Amino acid sequence: MRRITLTQRIASDIAGQISEGILREGDKLPSLREYMRLHGYSKNTVITAYEYLAAEGLVEARHGRGFFVRAVPAAGDGDQAPPPYARALDTIWMMRQQLVREPGHSHLGEGFPPVDWLMDMRLDKFHRQVVRGGVTTLFRYGNRYGNASLREQLVKKLAGYGINASPAQMLTTFGANHGMDLIIRRFVKPGDPVLVESPGYYPLFGKLQLQGARMLPVPRRIDGPDLNALQRYLERDKPALFFMQSVGHNPTGTDLSEMKARRILELANKHNLLVVENDAMADFKLNTCTRLSSLDQLKRTLYVGSFSKPISAALRVGFVAGDEGLISELADVKMLLHIGGTEYAERTVDVILREGNYLRHLSRLQEKLRAATVIGLRVLDELGADVFHRPEQSLYLWARFPGIGDANDLTRRCLERGVMLAPGSIFSVDRRDRVPWTRLNVAYLDDPAFRASLRA
Amino acid sequence: MRRITLTQRIASDIAGQISEGILREGDKLPSLREYMRLHGYSKNTVITAYEYLAAEGLVEARHGRGFFVRAVPAAGDGDQAPPPYARALDTIWMMRQQLVREPGHSHLGEGFPPVDWLMDMRLDKFHRQVVRGGVTTLFRYGNRYGNASLREQLVKKLAGYGINASPAQMLTTFGANHGMDLIIRRFVKPGDPVLVESPGYYPLFGKLQLQGARMLPVPRRIDGPDLNALQRYLERDKPALFFMQSVGHNPTGTDLSEMKARRILELANKHNLLVVENDAMADFKLNTCTRLSSLDQLKRTLYVGSFSKPISAALRVGFVAGDEGLISELADVKMLLHIGGTEYAERTVDVILREGNYLRHLSRLQEKLRAATVIGLRVLDELGADVFHRPEQSLYLWARFPGIGDANDLTRRCLERGVMLAPGSIFSVDRRDRVPWTRLNVAYLDDPAFRASLRA
Repeated sequence: MRRITLTQRIASDIAGQISEGILREGDKLPSLREYMRLHGYSKNTVITAYEYLAAEGLVEARHGRGFFVRAVPAAGDGDQAPPPYARALDTIWMMRQQLVREPGHSHLGEGFPPVDWLMDMRLDKFHRQVVRGGVTTLFRYGNRYGNASLREQLVKKLAGYGINASPAQMLTTFGANHGMDLIIRRFVKPGDPVLVESPGYYPLFGKLQLQGARMLPVPRRIDGPDLNALQRYLERDKPALFFMQSVGHNPTGTDLSEMKARRILELANKHNLLVVENDAMADFKLNTCTRLSSLDQLKRTLYVGSFSKPISAALRVGFVAGDEGLISELADVKMLLHIGGTEYAERTVDVILREGNYLRHLSRLQEKLRAATVIGLRVLDELGADVFHRPEQSLYLWARFPGIGDANDLTRRCLERGVMLAPGSIFSVDRRDRVPWTRLNVAYLDDPAFRASLRA
Repeated sequence: MRRITLTQRIASDIAGQISEGILREGDKLPSLREYMRLHGYSKNTVITAYEYLAAEGLVEARHGRGFFVRAVPAAGDGDQAPPPYARALDTIWMMRQQLVREPGHSHLGEGFPPVDWLMDMRLDKFHRQVVRGGVTTLFRYGNRYGNASLREQLVKKLAGYGINASPAQMLTTFGANHGMDLIIRRFVKPGDPVLVESPGYYPLFGKLQLQGARMLPVPRRIDGPDLNALQRYLERDKPALFFMQSVGHNPTGTDLSEMKARRILELANKHNLLVVENDAMADFKLNTCTRLSSLDQLKRTLYVGSFSKPISAALRVGFVAGDEGLISELADVKMLLHIGGTEYAERTVDVILREGNYLRHLSRLQEKLRAATVIGLRVLDELGADVFHRPEQSLYLWARFPGIGDANDLTRRCLERGVMLAPGSIFSVDRRDRVPWTRLNVAYLDDPAFRASLRA
């Protein structure tokens, strides 16, 4: 707790000096070492404060030279667009927060399920079976498509969703994010228009920004993307790609209706659109949810899956399924960029799917999720929250609170009490949006520190 | 053996039909299925033939629609530049070949050491120690920099080369290629000039092509890059990045001289150049080799390392070392693209470096390499080859043979006998170059089929 208060104090001291003109544009902040020595703070505390100021746009890091005060941007002043890396900075700040775990903190803003929901699947106990598959192949680069046995398992997994595909239509990746990046690298040139959902999956936005894409935000409704907006963009901007999430949408926890799914596919056919269906939450929902890839059978859809959340994020195994020709091209891009996947990790996932009672693990996981969703909704009701959608089971709930016009304020207040939130602006294509909504991880909603923050 | 002959026959049949005008530009080749059914060939045989024709530029694959006859390009006809993906196709063909292992084939063109050189390090026996590091962290995303304990080991490893760096200057990656890609993604925009060595590491060329960079080829000499060419490019094109390999250069097997190293750093300082030193072959050479990063102490250098060749390519663990600010930025790019690394694989490498008698493994590996280099040079002498450089120990030798003006011809001839070569044109920035040189893997040089091909 104490470190957060210190971090906040350092950050607000410096912000105050900037607003009072004591520190001006181009001034160098004291080096981390100077600041630590001067005030007796730990390095982490000072770094976190500086990074917070950088994320707020008040200062910037320059290669190996330290932090400098930035020009205060006048809104809409027609300045040159910042370089791609700088444009992704907000996403970077949020993602860094997600990777840090401070003892005693609540991770209500986190996108990940609690580790104890996963631990009935003891990752270490599959080692013998993994090695049984042959030691020599643990030394070399693998197939450009990924481990063959795992890809057969993926065929069965997709069949469970009514998607019929062959192993040649399966490409393993280092997780869903890697899959989306391969698609971006293959199909998106700087300046290209790309359809995304808003609110939507912010690490995707970061990747598109880094590639220099022009994002077209399609508002997400309770039953899927807004069709009028989608149609207007298709007619006006002629985008070739649409990234969306049918099932357990991040951050709203909503699912696509079959009616909308059919209409999206009609539009895709008419406008020669390729739809990338990110299904990273598949294993947290019932198999019967509506998926574009099931209705379309991977003609105009690429299906992106992941084992990060249901098995382990540390293995880095995900996959892309699609048309055989497209998958071969994506396999080439994967090979060009990274040669191949992690054979050991892919074999571990393969063994778990074959021998690990995976379905039983999933049904336990979903039971925990259902119970947590009920509790989460009850907590939100008690707090007088407006919940965007009330699903039966969803890792995420999207809510706003009475008197909160900008969730960034709430996030700052919660951080002081050791509660990490995921404010709505992060999920917005334009990060300057004032968004009252917050994404809440149901596993951590029943938290006294969070209630106290809201009551304060 | 039989499959190669069939593949060659199919390819030459189709090439003949194209040159005779039976198949014309835009014509669709028979589908794989049709061809298989018609001739009773296996799918792989037909695919290999089609891909060979595609690599030769005679046909092209179109998304999910099959293979089509291409326009025969008139040299220098001022056509529009092909899209980035198409430009990388030659690299893709070569990389695919590297990943395929046909039983009974010789892999003289391969870049990898034989697996039995690596197997004294039984990868599977470290599992217990890996798990001892804690099971719960095997579920979550890791630190954006990578496993902390491994990064401490990397500090020690680099100290062995006289490079002084802290753990905050170390970033783990999915191998050296991932490291180079992160650097490209951070620093290279489409159209940017980038210095590379020629001949040079072709998977790097593929990545730069995919990013739309303009490659400036600096000729590689026996003691390092050509300084005159380097200086001319620096003055004329103002590139900001230079990718090079000081030690055990791929494909020539040459090492950088200290004189040249110092001169390169002077030029880098003068022209504000960042040098990326790919040191993937470090563990195959003596620690005392000259490295830019040692002389420069990572001020204007980024050091790229890999455990793919000395431990295992299937683990996908490499790293980048550099200035703390730059490494933090690259860690952000890694996080944006792939969230994090493979904790299990990184811990495995960490345990091997700590407890696996790694130095003994390396000294055995280098002994095998020295013996194979002596034999390889003897075989080349017997064949009357001209060897570019005669190192004491090097996985690669760069040689040309009497009567061979274009190593592509030799490569075709060898492929018919089941010997896979790496022809010089692959390592050229302009793949249309007629290059007499070939890269030979010393581990496979003593091969009767290769001798027979050359005598034929």
